[in-house]
Amino acid sequence: MSNPKYLTGDAAAVNEFIDKFDVFLLDCDGVLWSGDHVYDGVPETIALLRSKGKRTVFVTNNSTKSRDEYLKKLTNLGIPSEKDDVFGSSYSAAIYISRILKLPEGKHKVFIIGEAGIEKELESEGIAHVGGTDEAFRRDITPEDFKGIADGSLLDPEVGVVLCGLDFHVNYLKLAHAMHYVKRGAIFLATNTDSTLPMHQDFFLGAGSCHYPVVHATGKTPLALGKPSQAMMDAVEGKFQLNRARTCMVGDRLNTDIKFGIEGQLGGTLHVLTGVHKRADWEKEDAIAVPSFYADKLSDLLLGAEKN
Amino acid sequence: MSNPKYLTGDAAAVNEFIDKFDVFLLDCDGVLWSGDHVYDGVPETIALLRSKGKRTVFVTNNSTKSRDEYLKKLTNLGIPSEKDDVFGSSYSAAIYISRILKLPEGKHKVFIIGEAGIEKELESEGIAHVGGTDEAFRRDITPEDFKGIADGSLLDPEVGVVLCGLDFHVNYLKLAHAMHYVKRGAIFLATNTDSTLPMHQDFFLGAGSCHYPVVHATGKTPLALGKPSQAMMDAVEGKFQLNRARTCMVGDRLNTDIKFGIEGQLGGTLHVLTGVHKRADWEKEDAIAVPSFYADKLSDLLLGAEKN
Repeated sequence: MSNPKYLTGDAAAVNEFIDKFDVFLLDCDGVLWSGDHVYDGVPETIALLRSKGKRTVFVTNNSTKSRDEYLKKLTNLGIPSEKDDVFGSSYSAAIYISRILKLPEGKHKVFIIGEAGIEKELESEGIAHVGGTDEAFRRDITPEDFKGIADGSLLDPEVGVVLCGLDFHVNYLKLAHAMHYVKRGAIFLATNTDSTLPMHQDFFLGAGSCHYPVVHATGKTPLALGKPSQAMMDAVEGKFQLNRARTCMVGDRLNTDIKFGIEGQLGGTLHVLTGVHKRADWEKEDAIAVPSFYADKLSDLLLGAEKN
Repeated sequence: MSNPKYLTGDAAAVNEFIDKFDVFLLDCDGVLWSGDHVYDGVPETIALLRSKGKRTVFVTNNSTKSRDEYLKKLTNLGIPSEKDDVFGSSYSAAIYISRILKLPEGKHKVFIIGEAGIEKELESEGIAHVGGTDEAFRRDITPEDFKGIADGSLLDPEVGVVLCGLDFHVNYLKLAHAMHYVKRGAIFLATNTDSTLPMHQDFFLGAGSCHYPVVHATGKTPLALGKPSQAMMDAVEGKFQLNRARTCMVGDRLNTDIKFGIEGQLGGTLHVLTGVHKRADWEKEDAIAVPSFYADKLSDLLLGAEKN
């Protein structure tokens, strides 16, 4: 694999890069912002790309927010957008459940480990759900719970899918339910399997870490609907009618973003160094994926404005 | 490796088995009981072994109970015992921290993911602890927590060890603290790494599953102080002055109990089929460990009483 081209400080290279693509799929956490802190120059960079007629789509594995909430966050951070500009892993999961799985009557409910974003996207596809943010599950497990979960009397017989995402309210009660639904044959899905979550210039536990107890206790691995799953790429392509050769994936993680773009046979991938992975991560021998371009930060593309 | 000898229904084999050993190290969950349900005939079996002059030691990975609490449970379930008959993974961890690690002043505190059993055993060795059952950690994580954990202002600079066990009150706040202490160099220990916990003739999430989010998010694996760690065997041997050749480990898990006995070079291992692993588990090619004896249930040893 050839070395990635370094764009930072090289105006000619930046212009050539931008000209190669019509569509930019952009990861959010670690690329646009960290938590609620938007990186300097990012709103201007998105505006620049749009002013050049490029389509920008925000493709995020963060499952805690629905598209509407993402829209609000983008706008608040100076990146006014439309709902169709956002493609999240919760939405991807909802599409997969409603259009691919087509759950039969009697097994049509989804048990959620995750936040409101998942619930809203499932609702937008008319999918019934239990668990999630339901206050009834935000408490300590009791001896009666153990008994009722074990004998099945406290399990909902209509649950056919367990869907896991990032859950800041994860607890033993929810994990025990998820474990037992999976053991009894529920289809095991995850919005994404990111082990960490960038926040406050540091990292916290990601969705993959939240539901890993269920993986460890059942020995089963969920099908992930977020990056790098090509189920998500197919859904993005179907929705935006994109020409893959003229599309670039921009991200900060080799194992999700860059792998997603390479396996999706996009025209290119751009790695920015404001998030999880650094140059050493793709320079090592067993690197998961190597980007075709990289830059210190997304706003290094602003250099492309100067000669325009 | 030779096939394990089957004891159920074979009085001569049972007597020969019992005569081979002076000490029986017995796992509890899955061997004596499941949750609060003691298996039929177990109290009589323990009484039989003792009547024959055998020493019975309860060696458990369950970290939620202290030795005193185990004593109460044993007595309530018809197996009157003494504190010295109990050797738990929390006690093993406390011994390891106080006598092997000897934490320096300024890094002498232990952050706990776990229940009161761990706290009590740490206290019995004079070790300071934070986290655990502290109500201050039994709540949702807030934006201020994320910030304070990331910048370190909410972390206790005196924490030198993170110790994880089974925690029925596990939550994102505790996991985030543990993750960040480990990232900042705290020694990462676990009472045990059992993925599941037998209860109500079924399985729930074990200690290993509770702290796996920290493993997944940091990429670091804790040193486990419970079975099959030989640190625990050394501690058991030191305390009971046992002759390993005349000692038998009795358990229901190949990867903890049976492996523990084999690696400890005990005279024998007895697998009972009332818990996690079944015959097929050691008959498959890549079996983790193969016991030297097996029986359907512990009380099958009662057959040894008939010809006595």
